[in-house]
Amino acid sequence: MRWSEAFIPTLREVPAEAELISHQLLLRAGMIRKLAAGIYIYLPLFQRTLLKVAQIVREEMNRQGAVEITMPVLHPAEIWQETGRWDTVGKELIRLKDRHGRDLVLGPTHEEIITFLVRGELRSYRQLPINLYQIQVKFRDEIRPRFGLLRGREFTMKDAYTFDATEESFKKSYQKMIDAYFAAFNRCGLETVKVESDTGAMGGKSAHEFIVLVDTEGGESLIFTCSNCDYAVHSDRASFKEAAPPSEKVLPYEKVHTPNVMAAEEVARFLKLPVQKLVKTMIYKTDNGFVAALVRGDREVNLVKLKNLVGSIEMDMAGTEDVQRITQAPKGFAGPVGLAGLEIIADTEVAVLPNFVSGANEGDYHIKNINTGRDFKPSRVADIKVAVEGEVCASCGKGKLKASRGIEVGNTFSLGTKYSVSLKATFLDEKGGERPFIMGSYGIGITRTAQAAVEKFHDADGIIWPKTIAPLDVHIVPVKMEDAQQAEVAERLYRAFNEAGIEPLLDDRKERAGVKFKDADLIGIPVQIVIGDRGLKEGKLEFKVRKTKESSTAPIGEAVPYFKKLWETI
Amino acid sequence: MRWSEAFIPTLREVPAEAELISHQLLLRAGMIRKLAAGIYIYLPLFQRTLLKVAQIVREEMNRQGAVEITMPVLHPAEIWQETGRWDTVGKELIRLKDRHGRDLVLGPTHEEIITFLVRGELRSYRQLPINLYQIQVKFRDEIRPRFGLLRGREFTMKDAYTFDATEESFKKSYQKMIDAYFAAFNRCGLETVKVESDTGAMGGKSAHEFIVLVDTEGGESLIFTCSNCDYAVHSDRASFKEAAPPSEKVLPYEKVHTPNVMAAEEVARFLKLPVQKLVKTMIYKTDNGFVAALVRGDREVNLVKLKNLVGSIEMDMAGTEDVQRITQAPKGFAGPVGLAGLEIIADTEVAVLPNFVSGANEGDYHIKNINTGRDFKPSRVADIKVAVEGEVCASCGKGKLKASRGIEVGNTFSLGTKYSVSLKATFLDEKGGERPFIMGSYGIGITRTAQAAVEKFHDADGIIWPKTIAPLDVHIVPVKMEDAQQAEVAERLYRAFNEAGIEPLLDDRKERAGVKFKDADLIGIPVQIVIGDRGLKEGKLEFKVRKTKESSTAPIGEAVPYFKKLWETI
Repeated sequence: MRWSEAFIPTLREVPAEAELISHQLLLRAGMIRKLAAGIYIYLPLFQRTLLKVAQIVREEMNRQGAVEITMPVLHPAEIWQETGRWDTVGKELIRLKDRHGRDLVLGPTHEEIITFLVRGELRSYRQLPINLYQIQVKFRDEIRPRFGLLRGREFTMKDAYTFDATEESFKKSYQKMIDAYFAAFNRCGLETVKVESDTGAMGGKSAHEFIVLVDTEGGESLIFTCSNCDYAVHSDRASFKEAAPPSEKVLPYEKVHTPNVMAAEEVARFLKLPVQKLVKTMIYKTDNGFVAALVRGDREVNLVKLKNLVGSIEMDMAGTEDVQRITQAPKGFAGPVGLAGLEIIADTEVAVLPNFVSGANEGDYHIKNINTGRDFKPSRVADIKVAVEGEVCASCGKGKLKASRGIEVGNTFSLGTKYSVSLKATFLDEKGGERPFIMGSYGIGITRTAQAAVEKFHDADGIIWPKTIAPLDVHIVPVKMEDAQQAEVAERLYRAFNEAGIEPLLDDRKERAGVKFKDADLIGIPVQIVIGDRGLKEGKLEFKVRKTKESSTAPIGEAVPYFKKLWETI
Repeated sequence: MRWSEAFIPTLREVPAEAELISHQLLLRAGMIRKLAAGIYIYLPLFQRTLLKVAQIVREEMNRQGAVEITMPVLHPAEIWQETGRWDTVGKELIRLKDRHGRDLVLGPTHEEIITFLVRGELRSYRQLPINLYQIQVKFRDEIRPRFGLLRGREFTMKDAYTFDATEESFKKSYQKMIDAYFAAFNRCGLETVKVESDTGAMGGKSAHEFIVLVDTEGGESLIFTCSNCDYAVHSDRASFKEAAPPSEKVLPYEKVHTPNVMAAEEVARFLKLPVQKLVKTMIYKTDNGFVAALVRGDREVNLVKLKNLVGSIEMDMAGTEDVQRITQAPKGFAGPVGLAGLEIIADTEVAVLPNFVSGANEGDYHIKNINTGRDFKPSRVADIKVAVEGEVCASCGKGKLKASRGIEVGNTFSLGTKYSVSLKATFLDEKGGERPFIMGSYGIGITRTAQAAVEKFHDADGIIWPKTIAPLDVHIVPVKMEDAQQAEVAERLYRAFNEAGIEPLLDDRKERAGVKFKDADLIGIPVQIVIGDRGLKEGKLEFKVRKTKESSTAPIGEAVPYFKKLWETI
């Protein structure tokens, strides 16, 4: 590729619109441009990276016997109504009408469509298992698009769907995708951690996410791993082994005056108690009314756990007026004792905590020595708290939880028969019985993976692409393109690399050397070759490895073999 | 690819929904399935063909210095409003609103977006010329989707856009695309004819289409070529050299009673005149009111020419009531004499035709010996008629026009500065002057090209894929997969072909041989290898070329080299 023929609009300034370093670098390196909120144009260099990521994913899918298809972007609403997701997905689902007034959906995922496809055509257990996938543009109307391609409204996904006759067979199909995912991300230069995750809008039985760990702002996913066993879990569903409650004599309950003291830490300080003796009573508005959630003063409510527990699609903190109506008191003094007319959900730690403090449902008053069962009856007791680093692993009971942050690049879902039952997709088993398919669904964000690589691999000067997904392999930089000899050597190298099947970028611009060097570091092609007067006098080229910034020289005639050796070391 | 892992739902019956043979075959061969009107799922075999067509197109674009990008499917309405196409494109443009109520468009083509992209970034003539392209899903809300992928609502296109500083440079850029197109279609096994065509909703200065000639129902485009010169033109804008009008004495005009005689042929018979002496007066409703169009009795009105002439986006025949109101007579008796209140457009043949007959604007009456100028004054005289085979070429004036039918697979548009002016996209020329880009736009229908190949290459038994775009290269058919020896040989061949970089399909189904053979012919992979008991006894395989149905045998150990030799002959 010649710089003069391509379109690589690099920027010196950091664009104000971008928070994340990867988003800034993709804009600055002329890789992407914004068309509208969450909608991006992929420019020539980035397009090449995307094709490479897609091809790696394709090859690893094919290796596991998955077969590629393409399903439409436009879906008839009827199929989404059949599974119920027309109602449950909410405003993230982009809906439209065609010229005849028929409702359509812009596909955010294709469980409905793939099930529609196979239900008429796969009839026998002998045709199973099967794994169909596609690499395709997807849509999600994010309420607040941000982070570049990470929270976009239009993005590219690989999505795969498995159909099995038995649970045993499904386990094998699922494991194949796990293997494909680790292999594909590794080939992209990205080490990933597989964690248990929430099933979200997908539903089904269980799920995993693949996370690229990063220590930057881009790490929007919080995960926990155990120091002792292989437990790894997304914070959405992380649990820990709870310590036994303090053994205390149950005391009589007592109303205490706490003027203007509301936050758990303040109340604890005021009453000279550890914050672990406080219980926060949080009130939420769900699709089915209000609920009160009780967690210890030092804990936070895990909204995903709570939503799943109450079966609500949307959930928000109750407003001040609602809280006053429900508790008959100003906001900040809610407590479980005497609270009526809504479900009270106590966290498992709260249910066994003796003599705790919570609001009195009366302004400026709290109650001491509350005991679950004696003073109030929770509707349900469940783990509804956010896990924290340092707690004991729920799985092995020995190790400590370690918190990390990262970017989700893939996910896998054990769907069970959710979609096959709702869409009546069945096959005939060995005995001739009609049974619904056991399904799995598996996503990889292609655009997300590419941005995750930038968030992970960069330095102060720009991107450092992993060599497998770099837009091009080698960046030829003649210091002065106006110089006939430099231009001639540059063209010769350009041809030689192309002929050797190595992808060169030739910076044939008549620009200052400083501009070219800065751009080279910014766009991050793994190897740079500098053609300068001094070197040419000795018949030599300067090779620079972008990642290490190490320079070395090699004779012009040996450019290709020298590059190949260098490539092996990267 | 193994049949058992893939999804190849072949059908024995001809699907009722499909009119065209290619549409029928794509459905029957398990290549596509319909999701909704004009919206299709591409199944594993067809997906492979599409990837091959796309890759050929990509390579030929890259060879001409074009550079790949990807633009979004979702476009903000504002940009379409800036160019005016928000209003001019009509209902084929799919519109929607996002969750915040903002208007969006599903991209049918990307002139707006590419111009938006470069206008901020390309500033100097030194950065020109440039050619950016993408391969991407497109949307068009066809009023009556049909013919499978040929008139679909969702389809895959390669679309390219050139930006030049001068007309001279633009001509070179345009020619490069012409070269790329011929090369790409040739590599797909498709000979194409390049014809002049109408610019349609794209606007701009001129356009060409690339047509694959077919002699089936699928040939929806009518084109004319000259027997003498290289004139080739779409019927939308075909002209011919008109014969000199008969030299006659101008006669006085005369009203004649023609009870219940209306159609031109009937009137001619009734009056014992050649139909060439009749003139049809057709009334159309346009965006700007009604027009009357006059063509000779043996001609038809060319609606594209007429629409372009009057500058109307939509145009329909006037309704009966409108005709009665305008002509003050029952429908069927319209004529130019005394017609008022609307534009009268006379075809060039009509304007010079002496003593013709047309309606009298009075029930059951016609007028004889009408002469343009003397008896009525046309608002405009223009060529508004459909060309016909056998007329004299308008270009060389010697050859005869030959009519052919075909499928449009590509188009190229000389846009001039239409989009750069309306979107204010300018660059600085050598003298520092601000000038709008000179643009071109170039499309290839990827899904269309694949279906055109099927419409062109098939026989009574199924598809005959050109070898460059066949889903796979060789189809291995063990007659009886239950037979251990056959299965072993089949697996061995499957591995050997894969290792040799030749793509095999292994029909590993436990199906009757007849079913397998029928399916093999139906899906149309270029070479079939039959593994049967009789052959195996002699250590031989049967090779069959799908296209010619010629069989030959080769020893098992020589399968790969024998295949390679055979491949060269196809």
